[in-house]
Amino acid sequence: MSSSDAPLSVDILRPSAMGPIADVDPRDTPGFDGGKSAGKAIRKARGEVLADLQERLYAHGRSGDPRSVLLVLQGMDTSGKGGIVRHVMGMVDPQGVSHASFGKPTDEELAHHFLWRIRKKVPAAGQIGVFDRSHYEDVLVVRVHELVPHDVWASRYDTITEFERELVRTETTVVKVFLHISHDEQRDRLARRLDRPDKYWKYNPGDVDERRYWSAYQEAYQAVLDRTDIDEAPWFVVPADHKWFARLAVTEILIEALSHLDLRWPAPDLDVDVEKKRLAES
Amino acid sequence: MSSSDAPLSVDILRPSAMGPIADVDPRDTPGFDGGKSAGKAIRKARGEVLADLQERLYAHGRSGDPRSVLLVLQGMDTSGKGGIVRHVMGMVDPQGVSHASFGKPTDEELAHHFLWRIRKKVPAAGQIGVFDRSHYEDVLVVRVHELVPHDVWASRYDTITEFERELVRTETTVVKVFLHISHDEQRDRLARRLDRPDKYWKYNPGDVDERRYWSAYQEAYQAVLDRTDIDEAPWFVVPADHKWFARLAVTEILIEALSHLDLRWPAPDLDVDVEKKRLAES
Repeated sequence: MSSSDAPLSVDILRPSAMGPIADVDPRDTPGFDGGKSAGKAIRKARGEVLADLQERLYAHGRSGDPRSVLLVLQGMDTSGKGGIVRHVMGMVDPQGVSHASFGKPTDEELAHHFLWRIRKKVPAAGQIGVFDRSHYEDVLVVRVHELVPHDVWASRYDTITEFERELVRTETTVVKVFLHISHDEQRDRLARRLDRPDKYWKYNPGDVDERRYWSAYQEAYQAVLDRTDIDEAPWFVVPADHKWFARLAVTEILIEALSHLDLRWPAPDLDVDVEKKRLAES
Repeated sequence: MSSSDAPLSVDILRPSAMGPIADVDPRDTPGFDGGKSAGKAIRKARGEVLADLQERLYAHGRSGDPRSVLLVLQGMDTSGKGGIVRHVMGMVDPQGVSHASFGKPTDEELAHHFLWRIRKKVPAAGQIGVFDRSHYEDVLVVRVHELVPHDVWASRYDTITEFERELVRTETTVVKVFLHISHDEQRDRLARRLDRPDKYWKYNPGDVDERRYWSAYQEAYQAVLDRTDIDEAPWFVVPADHKWFARLAVTEILIEALSHLDLRWPAPDLDVDVEKKRLAES
């Protein structure tokens, strides 16, 4: 299976094609006709394409090529960010993936510019970086709960697009995914955590309190999509009530991003025949 | 399959049981009677046991338990350290694995104590940390090439065991693996990199030069095993000419280490019935 055998076109997941998120059904599977078992099987097959592209990116990184890829994952609690890391990034070599998770900022982080902790985790050459939450929290939870004055968070949209343009200029491909789940699906997922002793640890009572701010969060996400969806660092709106669809879609988004990098195997910076002789004599 | 269905006993891989590495055949598969296809199949089945234990460790970490696990990987070039990361750590959730690779030190690292860069990468609570090379390089390549005076590297063995005892006291389980390959197998592996354009990038001409120091490295490894194999932070000598065996053995070493942590699912720090009601009303 080559990178051109895409089971769905990721372009239709761009915010401009999807329209306002209030009109997007989180149970949809845009561009994909199959069901769960087909979707899972295709994701696993496409995992081999992704793993091959990832290894090429890694090889380039080791050969002096500065390029990297950054996947930003955002979504409400239980939207499946962790599952993406496990089931999508879990299909490629761990050596080529750098994972960063951004929770509530520490005192030290709060004492710095909001991008300070983010810049420290930007992927190195040859790596696929995955941000489980990101700098977008500074215009999401911060906006919803007014953790800083209006003028401060309102100025951050432009700061964020400038930052991302800078990343792209310095050879990091940036793709951003909003995992879109429904209010009902979130309740079901939280309830399942309370039904199973092996899932209790994932349950946080604060998540129920946050559900009261659902519509404010949806507005904040819409503002993010309206203000920060730039072609250099595109957003994708991924309906996520079906976990299998979200994982398939993110697999395709990564394959598409990596395919644009034209990752042929790096040429050897040595005389292969000379080295073969030297090696045989060693 | 439970953690007690071990296909081999890892105790026989301890240096005291294996004897001097000069007498160990790197093609051996101690304690395992099967061949390659059986070994691979068993490793994959045991991967589910490992993934379950890893998730429990992660859950404990999220619930305030400080414990973590550190796997130190050492071995000559081409001994398969990267393959362990890919095929063993690749079987568990990437969110619970922190991977650090220690190459030639930077100027900043050289300006600090040799453990400075190591301490920064010690795994956080709930994580399995994997060191691809480690502080042991400071008594291996440094000793072989006399990069510091004799007295300096000679004092490091004790410093290292003190450091590892400190890790264990602060709840990090430490296991250390020496991937033992033969001089001939290394030549074959390097030669394969020169036969395939998709492997050229892995070939480093300096690796051939290092082959001249083979016996000095073997002596340096033996000194490491003699001086730093402590019960609190044990070494395992893993014959590694058969990649499938090395990967199976390391899977078992990790399962054994995690099994000792008695990782039952954390008890909930909340009233499940109250939360169910709150959630239903949300």
